[in-house]
Amino acid sequence: MAKEKKAPKPKAQTPKGFRDYFGTEVTERAEMLAQIAGVYHRYGFDALESSAVETVEALGKFLPDVDRPNEGVFAWQEDEDGDKGDWLALRYDLTAPLARVYAQHRNDLPLPYRRYAMGPVWRNEKPGPGRFRQFYQCDADTVGSGSVAADAEICAMLADTLEVVGIPRGDYIVRVNNRKVLNGVLEAMGLNDDAQRDAVLRTIDKFDKVGEAGVRELLGKGRLDASGAYIDGVGLSDAQAEPVIAFLTSKGETAAQTIQNLKAAIGDSTIGAEGVAELEQIADLLAAGGYGPDRIVIDPSVVRGLGYYTGPVFEAELTFEILDEKGRKRQFGSVAGGGRYDDLVKRFTGQPVPATGVSIGVDRLLAALREKGRIGSQSAGPVVVTVMDRDRMGDYQAMVAELRSAGIRAEVYLGNPKNFGNQLKYADKRNSPVAVIEGGDEKANGVVQIKDLILGAKIAESASLEEWQDRPNQFEVPRDQLVSKVREILESYS
Amino acid sequence: MAKEKKAPKPKAQTPKGFRDYFGTEVTERAEMLAQIAGVYHRYGFDALESSAVETVEALGKFLPDVDRPNEGVFAWQEDEDGDKGDWLALRYDLTAPLARVYAQHRNDLPLPYRRYAMGPVWRNEKPGPGRFRQFYQCDADTVGSGSVAADAEICAMLADTLEVVGIPRGDYIVRVNNRKVLNGVLEAMGLNDDAQRDAVLRTIDKFDKVGEAGVRELLGKGRLDASGAYIDGVGLSDAQAEPVIAFLTSKGETAAQTIQNLKAAIGDSTIGAEGVAELEQIADLLAAGGYGPDRIVIDPSVVRGLGYYTGPVFEAELTFEILDEKGRKRQFGSVAGGGRYDDLVKRFTGQPVPATGVSIGVDRLLAALREKGRIGSQSAGPVVVTVMDRDRMGDYQAMVAELRSAGIRAEVYLGNPKNFGNQLKYADKRNSPVAVIEGGDEKANGVVQIKDLILGAKIAESASLEEWQDRPNQFEVPRDQLVSKVREILESYS
Repeated sequence: MAKEKKAPKPKAQTPKGFRDYFGTEVTERAEMLAQIAGVYHRYGFDALESSAVETVEALGKFLPDVDRPNEGVFAWQEDEDGDKGDWLALRYDLTAPLARVYAQHRNDLPLPYRRYAMGPVWRNEKPGPGRFRQFYQCDADTVGSGSVAADAEICAMLADTLEVVGIPRGDYIVRVNNRKVLNGVLEAMGLNDDAQRDAVLRTIDKFDKVGEAGVRELLGKGRLDASGAYIDGVGLSDAQAEPVIAFLTSKGETAAQTIQNLKAAIGDSTIGAEGVAELEQIADLLAAGGYGPDRIVIDPSVVRGLGYYTGPVFEAELTFEILDEKGRKRQFGSVAGGGRYDDLVKRFTGQPVPATGVSIGVDRLLAALREKGRIGSQSAGPVVVTVMDRDRMGDYQAMVAELRSAGIRAEVYLGNPKNFGNQLKYADKRNSPVAVIEGGDEKANGVVQIKDLILGAKIAESASLEEWQDRPNQFEVPRDQLVSKVREILESYS
Repeated sequence: MAKEKKAPKPKAQTPKGFRDYFGTEVTERAEMLAQIAGVYHRYGFDALESSAVETVEALGKFLPDVDRPNEGVFAWQEDEDGDKGDWLALRYDLTAPLARVYAQHRNDLPLPYRRYAMGPVWRNEKPGPGRFRQFYQCDADTVGSGSVAADAEICAMLADTLEVVGIPRGDYIVRVNNRKVLNGVLEAMGLNDDAQRDAVLRTIDKFDKVGEAGVRELLGKGRLDASGAYIDGVGLSDAQAEPVIAFLTSKGETAAQTIQNLKAAIGDSTIGAEGVAELEQIADLLAAGGYGPDRIVIDPSVVRGLGYYTGPVFEAELTFEILDEKGRKRQFGSVAGGGRYDDLVKRFTGQPVPATGVSIGVDRLLAALREKGRIGSQSAGPVVVTVMDRDRMGDYQAMVAELRSAGIRAEVYLGNPKNFGNQLKYADKRNSPVAVIEGGDEKANGVVQIKDLILGAKIAESASLEEWQDRPNQFEVPRDQLVSKVREILESYS
């Protein structure tokens, strides 16, 4: 037998575009999601956790290629006793699985069905800085209600959610628009040619970036962009372009004024009138629920997703300022978006089922909370009981057991105890507030040494020691006062 | 252009072996995991969430076959600009990723590193009844400590965890064994032939099923199994088999007695003596921490995992009785297991890194809590505000907003309001405790109707109405008493 070649060591690395999350990165996200789930629950939404793996057929958008489907999803083919089976894939969002779940279980689910879902999704895309191929989404959707009351409810819930997780009123705004109004505008313009409508839609999508003047140019002759390239225009006359501009800039001082402006922009269009009436109803419903324009506002300049959704569209923006990479002030921006998409389940059943929902960008919202100082402080490390005498490990275990019973996070040092300096370095790395020391002398005298590591760090940092001198950072207490003394120190810093 | 054939409707189905989780299935698991995380945190363990996707190379056990690696994992090959790249796979447990994470980040992690992880894992296996290809695991491990204090800590934490989630003391037992003792027994028997050692190990694994007499037969000449097939034995003489039997049955009345019996079983073996000393230390440490043999016990009859682990092995068993499929009483059985595995990181770095840990079977533990009546009650549905007049949706929205502000779960009916019976059927399906009704007359009179649906259901069930007759299940209250009255009803059932 030939001698087998020894396998080289495997690389200890996440695949490209994936990452690990440590400590507070995990717990802070979990806490935020639990708070959000609390709001969703109060609104009558039920939890759903669908499987991470779906058939490519059910996911829909991504069908098997000649070889394998790799357009945006991670997919593989089932192997059934040597035969090739179904193509499976990791879900790329939480909406496609909702459609499958609703179609599969519709006889058992209430109608309308309000559900929320939170969990990772996967995208087979080129990773980049800050762009990962696995990330969290957090969605709430109402399936089976065509009423705009369902849309209004989602907007109210979104506002409540932001406040509950820690974004104060005044620091966010939920903006509402409606795809039907835009359709009305296109109709009023007499644009019935699909290609031209699409060109107008694509142009509107750039409103955020190029502003009113830019959209005017792009709807007309074209425009020199920042890089110096000339972008061809749609070729409309100024007069033809006017309704689009009127639509995009229709936001007035009040909802009534905005509605008035929109009515002018849509002319005689029936679908447009329907859309405006929906926005009016949403504004009324929100006002009835106590959600004023300081929280939720009708704003036709919201264009993100207008191409995808079929009715009302919403977006939550955080309005406080942050500094960008170049030190310039800018608004934090969008953290959630959604809208009505009425063809959700039709693929499966042939029956149209209206649906509306919202998706919160979990990482964006966490970043916002970090900006506001709501999260991101270093986690409180455990009290570390050091090991002075390895034969008395039982004594140290008894100490941590007592501390834990009192609800205090505590651990025994489990590394090699020989070098005491290493034990204190370890406590430092763990961000420990307190170290406990019991050597042979202390044991004999029935006492323990308690080292206040937070105070110790402050003394080390401080230029002048005076302000600390009446508070020693290490002291001796009777063994039976261990828990009460440690608690006293922890409370002095909380 | 040829007319495209219309695609057939996709099947609305999870892939084989996958399932969806609804409502309380999701929230009860989340609550249990949060409780467990609380205990782990108190013990100084930090959260880790590694990516769900790993390179097949890092996962280790499963290397690419000729075509694709499908032995137990879901795997696929990266496509990099048309070139074939790395093989990736979904993690099949939380231990293999821990090894990769520790090797990758070891310079930034504390030493020892205590971490916990909870989340789904995936197995590419034939699904069966109750056997799914995606399920949750919940692990805690200490990497970088060779001290048996780390093992004792895991056992204590496991006992605390079971009590915190709702398994009372007396209903569980954590059993501890040690692979080194078994090695000592094999050494004492003079079994140095690997094949024979393996045969003995495999036999010991059957101790749970066949008992002492069965193991005796299997170590000797062989045994007729339940199906009538003859199973060949290892071929040892009775005298040769004796140390193994002594080992398996060495559990005495006290830890001291068990230790005494084990010392006899291992003879002069050095490795065996080391193992016995470790068990003795573990027993001492646990006693020092207040964990008596009513919670954690040295028990050499625990053989699960003895082949895999390198030192102490632990298993948590629930001792209360349930009825099996055939109505016979049996103990609930194992819900968690673990042990020491000292070669964890070596594959990556070449350096041996000691590690010990435990994995809780999340679904098993949830099933146990359901058996004990701790979870599994129907979730409290929302108060449903019915829609009598669809033009007054604003009024109904205002009601639910008030209820929610008072912390009461509430929703407006968002289906077609035409048929009032459907609205009550919906409330029933939602398990609603209360329905609120405000028609035109009520509105004019400044009142609302409140329907106590729990009482209503009781009346409907009850043969005699007498006991309910002094408590009407529907009544009128002033509109401004809506919240207080609903709260009163909810509190009467809580």
